[in-house]
Amino acid sequence: MMRTRAAVALEAGKPLEIMEVNLEGPKAGEVLVEIKATGICHTDEFTLSGADPEGLFPSILGHEGAGVVLEVGEGVTTLKPGDHVIPLYTPECRECHSCLSGKTNLCTAIRGTQGQGLMPDGTSRFSMLDGTPIYHYMGCSTFANHTVMPEIALAKVRDDAPFDKICYIGCGVTTGIGAVINTAGVEIGSSAAVFGLGGIGLNVIQGLRMAGADKIIGVDLNNSKAEMARKFGMTDFVNPAELPEGQSVTEAIIELTKTEKDQFGGVDYSFDATGNVQVMRDALECSHRGWGVSVIIGVAPAGAEISTRPFQLVTGRVWKGTAFGGAKGRTDVPKFVDWYMDGKIEIDPMITHKLSLDEINKGFDLMHEGKSIRAVVEY
Amino acid sequence: MMRTRAAVALEAGKPLEIMEVNLEGPKAGEVLVEIKATGICHTDEFTLSGADPEGLFPSILGHEGAGVVLEVGEGVTTLKPGDHVIPLYTPECRECHSCLSGKTNLCTAIRGTQGQGLMPDGTSRFSMLDGTPIYHYMGCSTFANHTVMPEIALAKVRDDAPFDKICYIGCGVTTGIGAVINTAGVEIGSSAAVFGLGGIGLNVIQGLRMAGADKIIGVDLNNSKAEMARKFGMTDFVNPAELPEGQSVTEAIIELTKTEKDQFGGVDYSFDATGNVQVMRDALECSHRGWGVSVIIGVAPAGAEISTRPFQLVTGRVWKGTAFGGAKGRTDVPKFVDWYMDGKIEIDPMITHKLSLDEINKGFDLMHEGKSIRAVVEY
Repeated sequence: MMRTRAAVALEAGKPLEIMEVNLEGPKAGEVLVEIKATGICHTDEFTLSGADPEGLFPSILGHEGAGVVLEVGEGVTTLKPGDHVIPLYTPECRECHSCLSGKTNLCTAIRGTQGQGLMPDGTSRFSMLDGTPIYHYMGCSTFANHTVMPEIALAKVRDDAPFDKICYIGCGVTTGIGAVINTAGVEIGSSAAVFGLGGIGLNVIQGLRMAGADKIIGVDLNNSKAEMARKFGMTDFVNPAELPEGQSVTEAIIELTKTEKDQFGGVDYSFDATGNVQVMRDALECSHRGWGVSVIIGVAPAGAEISTRPFQLVTGRVWKGTAFGGAKGRTDVPKFVDWYMDGKIEIDPMITHKLSLDEINKGFDLMHEGKSIRAVVEY
Repeated sequence: MMRTRAAVALEAGKPLEIMEVNLEGPKAGEVLVEIKATGICHTDEFTLSGADPEGLFPSILGHEGAGVVLEVGEGVTTLKPGDHVIPLYTPECRECHSCLSGKTNLCTAIRGTQGQGLMPDGTSRFSMLDGTPIYHYMGCSTFANHTVMPEIALAKVRDDAPFDKICYIGCGVTTGIGAVINTAGVEIGSSAAVFGLGGIGLNVIQGLRMAGADKIIGVDLNNSKAEMARKFGMTDFVNPAELPEGQSVTEAIIELTKTEKDQFGGVDYSFDATGNVQVMRDALECSHRGWGVSVIIGVAPAGAEISTRPFQLVTGRVWKGTAFGGAKGRTDVPKFVDWYMDGKIEIDPMITHKLSLDEINKGFDLMHEGKSIRAVVEY
């Protein structure tokens, strides 16, 4: 049993409280990690706000981190103290029915206990100093300076990569780029539309640039998002609030993609990075008749439903979704880190704010105010 | 100009009228075909009933035929008199943006005029004896003993195949089997659920058998459909009206597919062959977390919408649709005919009724009464 400092979510809708907590050492198959940096993601905010019907309190949020292995539990063979790691909220056991299918990244080995805020043995490693258990979050809890995680939920990465940048690969970068290359399978020369130019949308855009897309249309209600998006590869910008009278956003995108050879128009691929179910419909319906693929990335409010006429699908559009960008964490995350170190993908301009753990609630404020792309807490 | 006999749809909701009509000879790029046999499909019924918002009257319905080329117009190079052909409501020009994409069978070369009930030059070849034009239907109009069609909308097939069977390949057989092998891409060993055990559903089932599926679950409210479905390869039957209190059809299918290795359950592939939007949702939601692919085949009532929670897609399910089974008609239909002649697929047991043209309205009655799988008119 050790003590560490953490930002604890005591109840929904309240700021996090910075405090000392107890942390038990790693049990069999588990690893103690010193978190060096963590991003603050909309999913943390979703749970903290109380909107997440599966949110548990008290808990230690945070799922986008990077750190160093301090100690390994019994039977751990793939990691050792000193290894640099990125926590994975989607583990990769390589043994369950899901992993062995080869068709999905949604490993189901520890899904049950993770959803209950617990380690695989059904208990928590965190507790208040008075002994009250604190729930884990998404199997990660990176808003603590130290955390315990299952071996199968840690990606070993190279030692020379900066924690304060690669922590973003633990969620946003991989989700956005992975949606393009794993889920959609975008080919060179494609056209695409990206709805929502926040952190995820920007990463979708750089994924599209990397995949060789010709036309990358960004869609956002906020014109100020366009400049950064262009830097990441956006070629065209549509603000749905500024269209000519009577033109819908789907019509605008279809017009933008019509060519002499193609009188129908529509993008080959579209991505929703807003979580708004009406936008998800627009994204589907602006995709090309015959082959358009539309990928849902955003998390919708509890109970919200997507709708369309079945004709949209019967005429060849495909509706998909993605979680963690379809990435198999232990296999793919180290590659993303290499790509960052090799300059194939950019992260630095997206890390707009650096905070200490004591300032973590400022990170949520910056998000609410739309001032940050990503705020990162360094321990 | 010649005369031929046809069953004419004079107005919505009325029986067809058998009469002599005028037929102009083929213009450039067109072909005169003597129709030898035609199936009566639900889509004909949908239009005749008046439910099809795009239905035009008077018209000559029918789109599931087989016949012989009598005469070719100027510039026709791939067909000659005496060739056996199957009309294609989805043409294959091999030159338009859609055909050249390699990603869709939805050729767009003549889509505009076809939707208006006209030949590509914007006129009709059919007229009443008093000169009133009669619309073509789906570019085929197989409820006439002779019809004129574009060269790109005719599949040349072998001469030894019986017209009264292979006409069914012009729609139902190809739609059902193609949904499995082209649209879904079912692999050996898969599990699948088929909603609706009418003609399309039976063809989906034999497509699944051909694709090597292990578990083929049929779903229908009518127990009497199960016997025939088993003959085509169905392994399990679910009647949603006969489930235990409180169990939904998706739960029943998920239970049927759980195994020791797979505690989640769900089918790898599902197919809606009902046209009911609630069933389409069930089909999606009984498919497997992580990789389930659900294909909409049925045509929904005008204005009906499909819905689901985006979570269903974000956790790995894919929602697609299919038209003409994703088949490229001139390329794929001759293969389907070969498969029938080689005994790889069955058609004979599905042709439950043979009628003369004068009896064609009986074919619609049999469909309404659920007594036929497919009624075929022989000229």
